[in-house]
Amino acid sequence: MIRMTISTSERAQVLTQALPYIKQYSGKTVVIKYGGNAMVSGGLKSAVMEDIVLLSTVGIKVVLVHGGGPEINEVIIKMGKEPKFVGGLRYTDRETMDVVQMVLAGKINKGLVQLIEQHGGRAIGLCGLDGGMIKAVKMKGEQDLGLVGDITKLDVTLIRDCLDSGTIPVIATVAAGEDGEEVYNVNADIAASQIAASLSAEKFVLMTDVRGLLADRENENSLISVVNVSDVPRLKRQGIINGGMIPKVDCCVEAVRRGVKRTHIIDGRIEHSILIEMLTDEGIGTMFL
Amino acid sequence: MIRMTISTSERAQVLTQALPYIKQYSGKTVVIKYGGNAMVSGGLKSAVMEDIVLLSTVGIKVVLVHGGGPEINEVIIKMGKEPKFVGGLRYTDRETMDVVQMVLAGKINKGLVQLIEQHGGRAIGLCGLDGGMIKAVKMKGEQDLGLVGDITKLDVTLIRDCLDSGTIPVIATVAAGEDGEEVYNVNADIAASQIAASLSAEKFVLMTDVRGLLADRENENSLISVVNVSDVPRLKRQGIINGGMIPKVDCCVEAVRRGVKRTHIIDGRIEHSILIEMLTDEGIGTMFL
Amino acid sequence: MIRMTISTSERAQVLTQALPYIKQYSGKTVVIKYGGNAMVSGGLKSAVMEDIVLLSTVGIKVVLVHGGGPEINEVIIKMGKEPKFVGGLRYTDRETMDVVQMVLAGKINKGLVQLIEQHGGRAIGLCGLDGGMIKAVKMKGEQDLGLVGDITKLDVTLIRDCLDSGTIPVIATVAAGEDGEEVYNVNADIAASQIAASLSAEKFVLMTDVRGLLADRENENSLISVVNVSDVPRLKRQGIINGGMIPKVDCCVEAVRRGVKRTHIIDGRIEHSILIEMLTDEGIGTMFL
Amino acid sequence: MIRMTISTSERAQVLTQALPYIKQYSGKTVVIKYGGNAMVSGGLKSAVMEDIVLLSTVGIKVVLVHGGGPEINEVIIKMGKEPKFVGGLRYTDRETMDVVQMVLAGKINKGLVQLIEQHGGRAIGLCGLDGGMIKAVKMKGEQDLGLVGDITKLDVTLIRDCLDSGTIPVIATVAAGEDGEEVYNVNADIAASQIAASLSAEKFVLMTDVRGLLADRENENSLISVVNVSDVPRLKRQGIINGGMIPKVDCCVEAVRRGVKRTHIIDGRIEHSILIEMLTDEGIGTMFL
Amino acid sequence: MIRMTISTSERAQVLTQALPYIKQYSGKTVVIKYGGNAMVSGGLKSAVMEDIVLLSTVGIKVVLVHGGGPEINEVIIKMGKEPKFVGGLRYTDRETMDVVQMVLAGKINKGLVQLIEQHGGRAIGLCGLDGGMIKAVKMKGEQDLGLVGDITKLDVTLIRDCLDSGTIPVIATVAAGEDGEEVYNVNADIAASQIAASLSAEKFVLMTDVRGLLADRENENSLISVVNVSDVPRLKRQGIINGGMIPKVDCCVEAVRRGVKRTHIIDGRIEHSILIEMLTDEGIGTMFL
Amino acid sequence: MIRMTISTSERAQVLTQALPYIKQYSGKTVVIKYGGNAMVSGGLKSAVMEDIVLLSTVGIKVVLVHGGGPEINEVIIKMGKEPKFVGGLRYTDRETMDVVQMVLAGKINKGLVQLIEQHGGRAIGLCGLDGGMIKAVKMKGEQDLGLVGDITKLDVTLIRDCLDSGTIPVIATVAAGEDGEEVYNVNADIAASQIAASLSAEKFVLMTDVRGLLADRENENSLISVVNVSDVPRLKRQGIINGGMIPKVDCCVEAVRRGVKRTHIIDGRIEHSILIEMLTDEGIGTMFL
Repeated sequence: MIRMTISTSERAQVLTQALPYIKQYSGKTVVIKYGGNAMVSGGLKSAVMEDIVLLSTVGIKVVLVHGGGPEINEVIIKMGKEPKFVGGLRYTDRETMDVVQMVLAGKINKGLVQLIEQHGGRAIGLCGLDGGMIKAVKMKGEQDLGLVGDITKLDVTLIRDCLDSGTIPVIATVAAGEDGEEVYNVNADIAASQIAASLSAEKFVLMTDVRGLLADRENENSLISVVNVSDVPRLKRQGIINGGMIPKVDCCVEAVRRGVKRTHIIDGRIEHSILIEMLTDEGIGTMFL
Repeated sequence: MIRMTISTSERAQVLTQALPYIKQYSGKTVVIKYGGNAMVSGGLKSAVMEDIVLLSTVGIKVVLVHGGGPEINEVIIKMGKEPKFVGGLRYTDRETMDVVQMVLAGKINKGLVQLIEQHGGRAIGLCGLDGGMIKAVKMKGEQDLGLVGDITKLDVTLIRDCLDSGTIPVIATVAAGEDGEEVYNVNADIAASQIAASLSAEKFVLMTDVRGLLADRENENSLISVVNVSDVPRLKRQGIINGGMIPKVDCCVEAVRRGVKRTHIIDGRIEHSILIEMLTDEGIGTMFL
Repeated sequence: MIRMTISTSERAQVLTQALPYIKQYSGKTVVIKYGGNAMVSGGLKSAVMEDIVLLSTVGIKVVLVHGGGPEINEVIIKMGKEPKFVGGLRYTDRETMDVVQMVLAGKINKGLVQLIEQHGGRAIGLCGLDGGMIKAVKMKGEQDLGLVGDITKLDVTLIRDCLDSGTIPVIATVAAGEDGEEVYNVNADIAASQIAASLSAEKFVLMTDVRGLLADRENENSLISVVNVSDVPRLKRQGIINGGMIPKVDCCVEAVRRGVKRTHIIDGRIEHSILIEMLTDEGIGTMFL
Repeated sequence: MIRMTISTSERAQVLTQALPYIKQYSGKTVVIKYGGNAMVSGGLKSAVMEDIVLLSTVGIKVVLVHGGGPEINEVIIKMGKEPKFVGGLRYTDRETMDVVQMVLAGKINKGLVQLIEQHGGRAIGLCGLDGGMIKAVKMKGEQDLGLVGDITKLDVTLIRDCLDSGTIPVIATVAAGEDGEEVYNVNADIAASQIAASLSAEKFVLMTDVRGLLADRENENSLISVVNVSDVPRLKRQGIINGGMIPKVDCCVEAVRRGVKRTHIIDGRIEHSILIEMLTDEGIGTMFL
Repeated sequence: MIRMTISTSERAQVLTQALPYIKQYSGKTVVIKYGGNAMVSGGLKSAVMEDIVLLSTVGIKVVLVHGGGPEINEVIIKMGKEPKFVGGLRYTDRETMDVVQMVLAGKINKGLVQLIEQHGGRAIGLCGLDGGMIKAVKMKGEQDLGLVGDITKLDVTLIRDCLDSGTIPVIATVAAGEDGEEVYNVNADIAASQIAASLSAEKFVLMTDVRGLLADRENENSLISVVNVSDVPRLKRQGIINGGMIPKVDCCVEAVRRGVKRTHIIDGRIEHSILIEMLTDEGIGTMFL
Repeated sequence: MIRMTISTSERAQVLTQALPYIKQYSGKTVVIKYGGNAMVSGGLKSAVMEDIVLLSTVGIKVVLVHGGGPEINEVIIKMGKEPKFVGGLRYTDRETMDVVQMVLAGKINKGLVQLIEQHGGRAIGLCGLDGGMIKAVKMKGEQDLGLVGDITKLDVTLIRDCLDSGTIPVIATVAAGEDGEEVYNVNADIAASQIAASLSAEKFVLMTDVRGLLADRENENSLISVVNVSDVPRLKRQGIINGGMIPKVDCCVEAVRRGVKRTHIIDGRIEHSILIEMLTDEGIGTMFL
């Protein structure tokens, strides 16, 4: 790391700012959704896990929910099949579901666990099947998406047990059907948002591959720092919240409505973005409250 | 199920026999290795999980360690590759290791969890990466087997935490390298035996696809019920312990030497074989002590 | 014991049936009234105590309330007096009361404790005087019965303490007068029923010397297995519940009304009747719910 | 009670003397043997129980062990038998043993419990059969005394449980044979001494019907207040310890040898003798240390 | 100490009277205000501390609040200043406040702590600044008294912590301003009364230099033992409560109104007055209830 | 505060450096001696207390021991006396001792408590008399220094209790004589060092008015950052450790010898010097290990 010259009084300033935040969050729960698109490089993935370990180091209870679309596609192709999408959403037949489960719960999930352990943290890799955590039913909609599910029941007992024993739960969002027979693929943003709400989390952070909400989508400097959830309908009408941001913002709004104090959409591609977001006055990305 | 006519006094006899065993094992730990070859049908797999739930129901702390060779081969073939064996052991390059991890930790492991939950138990699917449970180094030997590892460190804290909270840990035996970088495939029989020893388990049960140790290998009725570990060298010399039984018997001997009271090799293909083994005077298979 | 040939699958069937019952009752309280008339032989008494020890072995909290009429008569006669009854009920003058207290609390009670200890259980012999458990007033009625009392206050703290420390309380139903001066003899069926209600017991079992409620009192095979308490008035009118069964059924009804889930009248003369009643689907005797 | 005029400063003096004793004994265990011969009147018995309640009121853990010879004789005679003594010791055939058990465990024991409860204390009546507390074998000696036993095993778990829950255990000294079959009558002084030793009691008090040890047995004013156990052999040789005092003094000596800090022989016929012994500088009777 | 001859039965009488009081107060909180005027001699001060240690010895939770007017004057004079009073109340400029704080919190407070420790107790010297215990604002009134404050907030957490760890909190009544900047002198009688109320104390005792409330103020034998708070207005109109007694009685009345069971004004100049007040039927001084 | 422009990556660097230190010290004890000479201004004193609150905020258990020489002199002079020194040490007659106790325990101590509370911390002001914390005897030496004492007994129970309840103990070093009669003034550096050792503190920091140990005492840039205690004798011989630094260094050496991991002499006049010392890689002042 390049040696920077930061003065004693600058260091003191950063520290006197950070310590009250550490106190505020220590012992509290923070749910972080780490999207497949933000996993742009092994180095960045490792840096994000380092930040999570540092936060847990000072007593913050971090829950990590992850996605993994790009890697799923890779394996499907390796198996000589073509990833199939219907209206932008993955069509999931039983064979595809097997791949989704193997990649999410077996590869990405345990890989993130391994990285956290490498940085000195203690993690455990779970999916919605463990402890009957997530139950789902086949998603209803105009188009048949196969084994894509809507969450019907969320039991966070296991997550709480992990947090209480100082372990970071890493969660892949595959779920059992209500009768326990089938396995469904459920949307990770929605699952993370509901987990945050059920845990009465202090914070819910969506790490994705955009800067946050932009007033002018062509201009990265037009970031909107704070959005009151009551302004969301207007921002949708104005087209400022649009496209792929709509379901992400809806997850944030839902979390706030169910009691999560603050939710954030931040750019997972910026190094240490979580640390800056949580421990400085400046923050980063867009906060919904 | 066929309605059998069991008399009141027969029922009382079974019960008065079983209750003291339940008392003896309640609160104690039993490690069961469930081999891939014993997973002969979905129905049998479900019945084995039912037995495990019943045992945990009366306070027995069950740890389930599993294999999965046949399913790994299936996925490798699907990906257009050929399973490769060297001297009877799987050669594991990095790509194969990815498949091993996905199938063991993502598919079989979470599938067993799902079955246990279906039968009303509470399970959690772990692998050697979780909580830094198993560390390994590349296996040394005449032939290079790639990412096949020997266990160097076993930390059962996470397993104990699960058991203490009334959860059945289901364990896939992939392990992190000592530096945390690589992932290794480790032998499940050996891992299960070491886990049993580290937990000071009351019992270690190897469920496989043979009746037990046979005095005359052509005659299924020549089952040897009890073997004292001091007689094992002689039985090897006599050829009664031979072939694939040798490493399995060695795992049992090692577990007994390290303090596990009793270890068993039983036939996983017989319905309810664990239940009979644990709760009746008769027992089943071969016991090492 | 004669060696019966019960097959492996029969054993498995009895066990898979019993284990869920054990789970259901484990940690729950069961109050058993063991009547003096059911103490027909030393061997049977010993077998009943063995069953109670087996039940407590798997975590069921058993409270044993007992009678002892026949033995009281014996001692009275030994002392050269004549047992005196008024309208079928014992007339209890102060000298008789001394004998009742000595026989119930000193002989039968401590004798049952000794048998339970012999079978490996842990028991403690109590009466209504201990810990101020039962208070009574002189029974009001047309005829003066001397020191026969009606319960006015029941404090189950001591019983709970015993159960919490894994001890089986064995209870003789003599009680202190409200001012603490006199000692009264109170009806053991009624005391047991009230204890079951105060403990919110899962089950209340009256072990007596009849098969249960018979549709045709001449025919032992006409047993009524289940009676809904709302049907009791009709059954009384029809004369099916009559004579000595009336007060016993009333105790069951009262227990059900006060929240005990299920109450049973069973035949204490059948070996292991409690075990069959509690741990098989068949049951025995008549259940009131 | 006669109103005495005690001045303020006299009261203050008694109190400043008593409070440090209360602190010293609070939370500590005191074993009191209350002999049958000291139960001279109902009023005195009631006063002794009042004192015990007062002591337990300020946190002193009192264990009460009692005798009952005179009452046993009464009942034997009522039954038309003759109490039979061999060399000064009761010959106990099985029928006599039944009477001993009934009178000690059923009548005197529960009667003392009732008195303690009347004075606002919380007591429980136990005998050596409860919780397997006392085991015995037939006493060996020149003469056959029938079912008179020597203690072979003493388990004070139950006594400790009672004390920990704020209950005064009242103990009758009948014991089970080692095989659990027979019941034996064991010497109450010896049992009490051993209980005190096993509980590491702070104090052991033998309440009997003599003033204590007298230098001149004709002169009640020649009381010896303190005896060092090393002087006991000499006092025996001098005849100062003689007759019935010998076994009592031996019990005290044995208790001191096994770690009981102080043991006392006091006169149970003096009102409030325990209170004075325990809470004033003066003391009463003879102390062995 | 003069050896008085108190008979055994007199001792027993004092003890049987005292023990129930000890039980009643044990584990309960008693707040004692010890006024500067009652600190008439070193010997008496030591005797009062001895009583407090004795009370805490038997589990009574004593809180000691103290004054110290006479000693404050001494130091002010030593510093060459003149104590200044306005309408009978001390005028407190900042320099005087420094002296008040030093004398109360540094000298008298720690001196009382030292005496308690000398008598074997465990004490801790606190003032209203510790743990933010007492907050105040400048007293409003016709005359400016400088840094004399009225209590606005009382946080008894620290006091409770001390009591729970078996320590006697000794409290000097200087308080922080609400913004934490200034220090104020607050009235010790009022502070003690409010502390008693906030702790839901069992008893509040004002130790001062008068006998109590006198029906005829010329006659020390005309002591009124018990006053119902509803009679206080009448007694004020009659002039029986007058002068310096008015604010003291008001403190008692306020404590009773806020739930303190009994409050007392007693004469701190009588040796062991607290002990007599608390542990005998006679009592001393005037009780308000 | 001037708004400095610290970049995101600089902030991240300071934070990733600080968090592991926070983890390392969280739950650990740090003893800080804050010397009278370092209390150069009200503003600086307030800043030091702010740092202490920030450290305790993240779970570090801070114990603050303080001096106060300059303020003692002020009050002595106000009282028309002359501070008297013998060989550089204060001569302390009883009148002076009264002043020392009042100023240290009543003024400075409670003043620091008030500042900590103002910054949102929770503090309690103690001296050696509280809880019998420090006992002393008259210092022996060539010259009579009056009531100056050497520590003979240190009981840190009270300090531990404070730390366990999340309170910062602030300690003035006056001590009771061994018989509890006299009060002695003890050296605060020595007391702090012994407290650190008795608490097995992680760190002991002497905040004084020098930069640390200088290789060239004329050159403030010649600071020696780390000194191994084995080098201290040589540094003394070389005159690098000399004058007033000798006793301070001796305190550090003694603390290290008795198990305190690291001890520091830092400059209390630099703002936030403790924060920099504890939470950055750079450190400040001289560390002894």
